[in-house]
Amino acid sequence: MDDRPIGVFDSGVGGLTVVKELRTQLPHEDLIYFGDTARVPYGSKSVPVIRRFSLEITRFLESQRVKMVVVACNTASALALDFLRRQSSVPVIGVIDPGVRAALAHEQVRAVGVIGTQATIRSEAYQSRLLRLRADCQVVAKACPLLVPIVEENLVATPIATLALEMYLAELRDRRLDALILACTHYPLLKEAIAAFLGTGVTLIDSAEETAREVTEVLQARRITGPADRPGTEEFYVSDSPEAFMRVGEPFLGRPMRQVFVEHVWKRDLGLGPDATPL
Amino acid sequence: MDDRPIGVFDSGVGGLTVVKELRTQLPHEDLIYFGDTARVPYGSKSVPVIRRFSLEITRFLESQRVKMVVVACNTASALALDFLRRQSSVPVIGVIDPGVRAALAHEQVRAVGVIGTQATIRSEAYQSRLLRLRADCQVVAKACPLLVPIVEENLVATPIATLALEMYLAELRDRRLDALILACTHYPLLKEAIAAFLGTGVTLIDSAEETAREVTEVLQARRITGPADRPGTEEFYVSDSPEAFMRVGEPFLGRPMRQVFVEHVWKRDLGLGPDATPL
Repeated sequence: MDDRPIGVFDSGVGGLTVVKELRTQLPHEDLIYFGDTARVPYGSKSVPVIRRFSLEITRFLESQRVKMVVVACNTASALALDFLRRQSSVPVIGVIDPGVRAALAHEQVRAVGVIGTQATIRSEAYQSRLLRLRADCQVVAKACPLLVPIVEENLVATPIATLALEMYLAELRDRRLDALILACTHYPLLKEAIAAFLGTGVTLIDSAEETAREVTEVLQARRITGPADRPGTEEFYVSDSPEAFMRVGEPFLGRPMRQVFVEHVWKRDLGLGPDATPL
Repeated sequence: MDDRPIGVFDSGVGGLTVVKELRTQLPHEDLIYFGDTARVPYGSKSVPVIRRFSLEITRFLESQRVKMVVVACNTASALALDFLRRQSSVPVIGVIDPGVRAALAHEQVRAVGVIGTQATIRSEAYQSRLLRLRADCQVVAKACPLLVPIVEENLVATPIATLALEMYLAELRDRRLDALILACTHYPLLKEAIAAFLGTGVTLIDSAEETAREVTEVLQARRITGPADRPGTEEFYVSDSPEAFMRVGEPFLGRPMRQVFVEHVWKRDLGLGPDATPL
């Protein structure tokens, strides 16, 4: 038994979909969320910057005595996960392995698509893991940089969204995919439109649910589940204004947040270990 | 005579259009540019965060002994200019006043449009200045948040750009504008498409040229122009990867950059004066 909280972070609001799933699957765990809203987005930025920002946030979560860090951001999972694991003494869980396992859940899956930010797709993190687990699978990966601003600007139900999906997904539709990994926490909000465009037969993989399942497994395997005698608490932190985060974040969390605190993580000492690549 | 360099900053690459104009109008001045590529964009962020970032950058430029700071970013000009002027001992020039003066250059101008980021439009910086200088003018302001990612993702010549312009500018076309201020450094790259959509009769105002003119005037008025006996030098700094900046920045500057340095401005002491609002 371990009554310390679970830390979850993302570049912005998107990781709240993971908090939502964690709350459903782990009603008794305390959760601390950090959204890096002052520096969002990560998807168009470089590897050293994404690692630096992710480590600053991990240091903040550690200062809050978390027993685990969940990297709810696909870009940070793709580019900083191994780095964070070397730098942190608590387990660090990303969203990529859970998403890949869900995509390959059925034996007969042979063609898998991956859509995400520039940085996620360029890292080949998804592509290499898919091929490692199923060498004969066909992987098609596509960066869709305009989809995040479309979701954040509330343009999901407009012709702009339709046109952007057509521009990005036309080549994927022609590939007769078995599954498509939505490798960005914003994309589930476009799930219906993506499903309509690709037609039936393509399973859309939203990593939040799978990630929460992996968190549960790791807690049990390490015997660090929390006390089951009370409802879990939640604390939300951001690096920019709480007001905008509460407003934009509500559809991701699926309910309102009562209070959000500001934390300037860039003031933290990185405490880099000896094996760290220079940032 | 003053041989110190002029500092110019922006949230990213856009301010290079101002560097380009400064170089044309002031061939002998040394220039130091900073692009905050690790934290771009500013346009969707809050006032305290935009002020904090702008002050960190100003402190960096001051450490490079600049004789003037040019805020080439519309969002930072709209939200942080007065604040920076109170905090800095060198003249601080923004892009808003020059843009407003250019829009009102002709006596008969009565209807002016302004397009920019969420933060710029919400600040009403342009709207209030236009009305202060010409009380009977009609001002129509519109935030166009998708245009920056469209320019940065190189989608200017695609149907997405056409559709986005139609979505944002339809109501402005119906207002029979005399002038439209392109209140974001990215928009000049959409100038042709905007002109085609609005039709003839609307003067498009690109602040870079006007801002360079104001810089020249201030240098002369304060007698701090540089030596005229040699070509001016240029130094470029960014907070994220130089490679991406050099590639994306070239169309803004109109020529390649030889070298770009990395500077982590967030490590700087803000040195807040006693009259500062808390950040």
